[in-house]
Amino acid sequence: MVKHLLLPYLVPSPRLFHLHSLRAFRPISSTIKMTAGVEHYTFGPYKIHKSEVFYTTLLSYAMVNLRPLLPGHILFFWASIIREVKRFVDLTADETSDLWLTAQKVGRELEDYHKASSLTFAIQDGPQAGQTVPHVHIHIVPRRSGDFENNDEIYDAMDEKEKELKQKLDLDKERKDKTLEEMSREAEEYRKLF
Amino acid sequence: MVKHLLLPYLVPSPRLFHLHSLRAFRPISSTIKMTAGVEHYTFGPYKIHKSEVFYTTLLSYAMVNLRPLLPGHILFFWASIIREVKRFVDLTADETSDLWLTAQKVGRELEDYHKASSLTFAIQDGPQAGQTVPHVHIHIVPRRSGDFENNDEIYDAMDEKEKELKQKLDLDKERKDKTLEEMSREAEEYRKLF
Repeated sequence: MVKHLLLPYLVPSPRLFHLHSLRAFRPISSTIKMTAGVEHYTFGPYKIHKSEVFYTTLLSYAMVNLRPLLPGHILFFWASIIREVKRFVDLTADETSDLWLTAQKVGRELEDYHKASSLTFAIQDGPQAGQTVPHVHIHIVPRRSGDFENNDEIYDAMDEKEKELKQKLDLDKERKDKTLEEMSREAEEYRKLF
Repeated sequence: MVKHLLLPYLVPSPRLFHLHSLRAFRPISSTIKMTAGVEHYTFGPYKIHKSEVFYTTLLSYAMVNLRPLLPGHILFFWASIIREVKRFVDLTADETSDLWLTAQKVGRELEDYHKASSLTFAIQDGPQAGQTVPHVHIHIVPRRSGDFENNDEIYDAMDEKEKELKQKLDLDKERKDKTLEEMSREAEEYRKLF
């Protein structure tokens, strides 16, 4: 029976095959419940409204940034895991694969959409690495020639964005609809890419 | 027959299951040939001697850094994909998963070994993101409290390391055994962790 695993017609693509493995090891009902009909995604102690989310899988989601950063109109995106896990090193193999396949897909589409030519991907895994929201997430930044005078500056900006994200989420806890409409419009645009 | 995919006894772990999917879609002989008995790993236009490599899978490998960085004796590691691919977004799903499962495992072990408490992971995906060696690789840096005065400085150091790596590899092209002995000793130590 193991031989069947080697027959391509049973497994039309590696991606689908990977999903089979998820189904074999997770109760489907519990993972689907998390994405279907959900109003908010959990992000550490915060809630991300579904209108800010433009791509989801069973285990991960991608959300829009707070606002573009000048110069170069650089945009920040986040891909995050759905289950609440603080550290990247604590993700299961399925979650690790799913999160990075999501980040890769999102990066590819957004680089193209924003006419960029490179991408910065980073995980600040733990507080000593600059993580402000204790929930695994990847920074994805489409890059262009000359967007920063020195390449290093992107990371200062990234750290700044991480702090801004936390501040924004702290604010949203009190004033829930602050920039929701604006962010919904942006997410709506990106949803069309997938 | 598809039902068999859902039976746990056929697939003892997600990781093993994932390897089955690799076997289904790749000619094993060609991937094994790349790792078994190999003297050098390809890294863009450069060769990495096997003694500098301390962990390998069928698709990825992890190598030691050039030298520790002060302050805080921060160490840099690289996880790289075996096949020569310039951009992260161009990896197959199997390669993406394998590379990040490698980075995760390496990060986890080295954080513990170096008594660190966080990790920085980053991909400079393309020249406009600071990539100097055109071959997909992940920077992995164990982090500790106070290792840098400002967290951002780690990225200046990372960019510096990326340049140093290229310089070092350029030098090695002429003076092959420059720091090979030193790096071999370090890799030997890390190999014991896996």
